[in-house]
Amino acid sequence: MARPREFDPEEALDKAMHQFWAKGYHDTSIRDLVSRTGVNYYGLYGEFENKRGLFLAALDLYRDTVTASVVAEIKADGPARRSLRRAFDRLMELTRTGDGDVGCMMCNAAVEVAPYDPAVAAKVRDHLTILNNAFTARIVEGQKSDELAPDGNADSLGEFLAATAYSAGLLRRAGQDDALVRRHIETALSVVG
Amino acid sequence: MARPREFDPEEALDKAMHQFWAKGYHDTSIRDLVSRTGVNYYGLYGEFENKRGLFLAALDLYRDTVTASVVAEIKADGPARRSLRRAFDRLMELTRTGDGDVGCMMCNAAVEVAPYDPAVAAKVRDHLTILNNAFTARIVEGQKSDELAPDGNADSLGEFLAATAYSAGLLRRAGQDDALVRRHIETALSVVG
Repeated sequence: MARPREFDPEEALDKAMHQFWAKGYHDTSIRDLVSRTGVNYYGLYGEFENKRGLFLAALDLYRDTVTASVVAEIKADGPARRSLRRAFDRLMELTRTGDGDVGCMMCNAAVEVAPYDPAVAAKVRDHLTILNNAFTARIVEGQKSDELAPDGNADSLGEFLAATAYSAGLLRRAGQDDALVRRHIETALSVVG
Repeated sequence: MARPREFDPEEALDKAMHQFWAKGYHDTSIRDLVSRTGVNYYGLYGEFENKRGLFLAALDLYRDTVTASVVAEIKADGPARRSLRRAFDRLMELTRTGDGDVGCMMCNAAVEVAPYDPAVAAKVRDHLTILNNAFTARIVEGQKSDELAPDGNADSLGEFLAATAYSAGLLRRAGQDDALVRRHIETALSVVG
């Protein structure tokens, strides 16, 4: 009979995700991951193969939890403009964790890892597409219901707000104060009309 | 009599800057720096102390060359709107080097190193301030001469375009195509009026 696993892989992955999110990929050591998850080397790598496997799984978890919660705000009932603003409010909350102003993990991975790892690059592209599609669909809806200015190009605007989610995360991680990040978001939202 | 230096420190620093710009801080090894600069370990560290010293000097060189050339376009004679657009054209050129779509080195450092190194964080903040000030001054000028819509808040707009320089560099590094990055810049410029 196989020995039962002595740890919860989902809980370990969540902790590993926060480690990578805060410290990045290259500066996170195996020792950091063991210490953060409380799972030993053999346990972690038995489940996720290696550091890269753990990072790839962490990016998926990020998309399915953090990003999903921003997308839920974009799609939420109510006026389009309010939903768009609340999505960025949520992003403001999510880019500050117990580790500090960590920014957006996908944006961090885009800078640090994507240029040299095609699998990470694909996850970053898919992530940006998820945000693009959600923003664009909401803008189209808001334009149809005359809530938003009807003359804007919804595709470009959706793409623009998706990139704004990245730049807001970047400003956060660069240690800019909340007021500056909020002004950045307000100026970007003003484009939507 | 001291032995003459066998390499040009400025040339070595320029090569080291390109190495860090492409590969980031943590993933650049001493071996990479020796190979890229053609200067041995003792030569490099005699001049720049250690890897971190070389990185800090490379950030200064980036500010004084790459960023300075974008700022020169912002300040250039001619219509304000044209100067702003040309500054972003220059940025588009500069974020693609012989190493590929490397993005903006300062934005990369903001993500990867600034959260854990106060000296790097200070250089990133100063860099953003340089861009803020140049964009804001040009917008004020354009508003006074009635070239730009006079009702915009020049401080917020300047800050917004500075952050757009970062997000454009980030999209570039994330492997987004030129057309998307250009659309992002055009949408951001539309805010200036």
